[in-house]
Amino acid sequence: MILGKVIGTLVASQKEESLNGLKFLIVRRVTVDNEETSGYIVAVDAVGAGVGEMVMVASGSSARLTRLTDKRPCDAVIMAIVDTWELDGVEKYRKD
Amino acid sequence: MILGKVIGTLVASQKEESLNGLKFLIVRRVTVDNEETSGYIVAVDAVGAGVGEMVMVASGSSARLTRLTDKRPCDAVIMAIVDTWELDGVEKYRKD
Amino acid sequence: MILGKVIGTLVASQKEESLNGLKFLIVRRVTVDNEETSGYIVAVDAVGAGVGEMVMVASGSSARLTRLTDKRPCDAVIMAIVDTWELDGVEKYRKD
Amino acid sequence: MILGKVIGTLVASQKEESLNGLKFLIVRRVTVDNEETSGYIVAVDAVGAGVGEMVMVASGSSARLTRLTDKRPCDAVIMAIVDTWELDGVEKYRKD
Amino acid sequence: MILGKVIGTLVASQKEESLNGLKFLIVRRVTVDNEETSGYIVAVDAVGAGVGEMVMVASGSSARLTRLTDKRPCDAVIMAIVDTWELDGVEKYRKD
Repeated sequence: MILGKVIGTLVASQKEESLNGLKFLIVRRVTVDNEETSGYIVAVDAVGAGVGEMVMVASGSSARLTRLTDKRPCDAVIMAIVDTWELDGVEKYRKD
Repeated sequence: MILGKVIGTLVASQKEESLNGLKFLIVRRVTVDNEETSGYIVAVDAVGAGVGEMVMVASGSSARLTRLTDKRPCDAVIMAIVDTWELDGVEKYRKD
Repeated sequence: MILGKVIGTLVASQKEESLNGLKFLIVRRVTVDNEETSGYIVAVDAVGAGVGEMVMVASGSSARLTRLTDKRPCDAVIMAIVDTWELDGVEKYRKD
Repeated sequence: MILGKVIGTLVASQKEESLNGLKFLIVRRVTVDNEETSGYIVAVDAVGAGVGEMVMVASGSSARLTRLTDKRPCDAVIMAIVDTWELDGVEKYRKD
Repeated sequence: MILGKVIGTLVASQKEESLNGLKFLIVRRVTVDNEETSGYIVAVDAVGAGVGEMVMVASGSSARLTRLTDKRPCDAVIMAIVDTWELDGVEKYRKD
């Protein structure tokens, strides 16, 4: 999984029918030291994430293994909101 | 999913039989700030997109989860036309 | 899918048994403006492509969705020979 | 598979329900000569790995082929702890 | 598939049980002109390859489509040993 920060929202009314009701969020990738990068991905939200939160994103076929995304044409899903991570015992991120 | 702008069309008459009838579009990747990049992908259109429109593309096995692409050798599909997206409350794109 | 030009052939006699009879071609990636890049992929030919032809390659599990590659350990397949593509109304490639 | 060193841990209490009980570890990619890179991946631990250990990570749908990750929205799994590897007869890594 | 040269071996005694008995080899990617790169992948050997041999590696779910790797958490497999390849009629590699 990758780590990323939710930075935006996206609206798409004309879409494959099975995607109705899903929420699309824009997630900016962060480094392991919690620095923002230019990379991003649009992911379906499966956990009630909001703009500003740090999340984990699963990609590929695994993105369809949530109740919301099952059998849908979705290749990236937010499957967890991150509380904290640490590297070699040093905290790099903690949710407010 | 990635964000991209439909910039072209492609014709391929000699192809795996199950692909007959599908429309192939060339999609240029854009950054999250809606700047064009040199990256592109050829995707099957599942939603009636046209040249100039901003779309979302799903890749990998998820590209086969639309009615049109089911069980076909297709690894990228346009599964939504984007209406608008915003970052931190600032609109970055709006469909005309 | 990616666009590429068939530039070579490959022979591999010692291989997983299910691959017997398949033809492996070397495909050089091209940009959307039809310039060659250093990128390449070895793909199974499902459509009778030859050296010099422009093709589309599907990767991942979708590479197994042709009659020839079904259930085989193959992650890239030539599933179409390109006739022509155009960008914003300008033709970038046409098969001779 | 890629080679990486476990450098950190991650806690995420709000997540897709099927992920309950899984341990998420942060793995830094290393080169084949055992030099650390800036690349990383967050992976589910299927083998009891700990911080400081060298591991192999499988990605994509294969990440769901362990007993712990079966049918879960997880796209990277630590499926082995590395004892040693060598290149052209020269040992590049040995577990303490 | 990618082309690579087997450059090393890896031992991992603590691993997901289904991986017992598999041989892990380190494969260095080569360019289409047969120059070594810094890229590598660890792959399961399905064809009896040895250090120094040129091989093809299939990745992703296709890596599980050999008899040895079926249903195992393995995302890269050596599915063929390369005898020769040529580009535009010029031989770039031939097995000794």
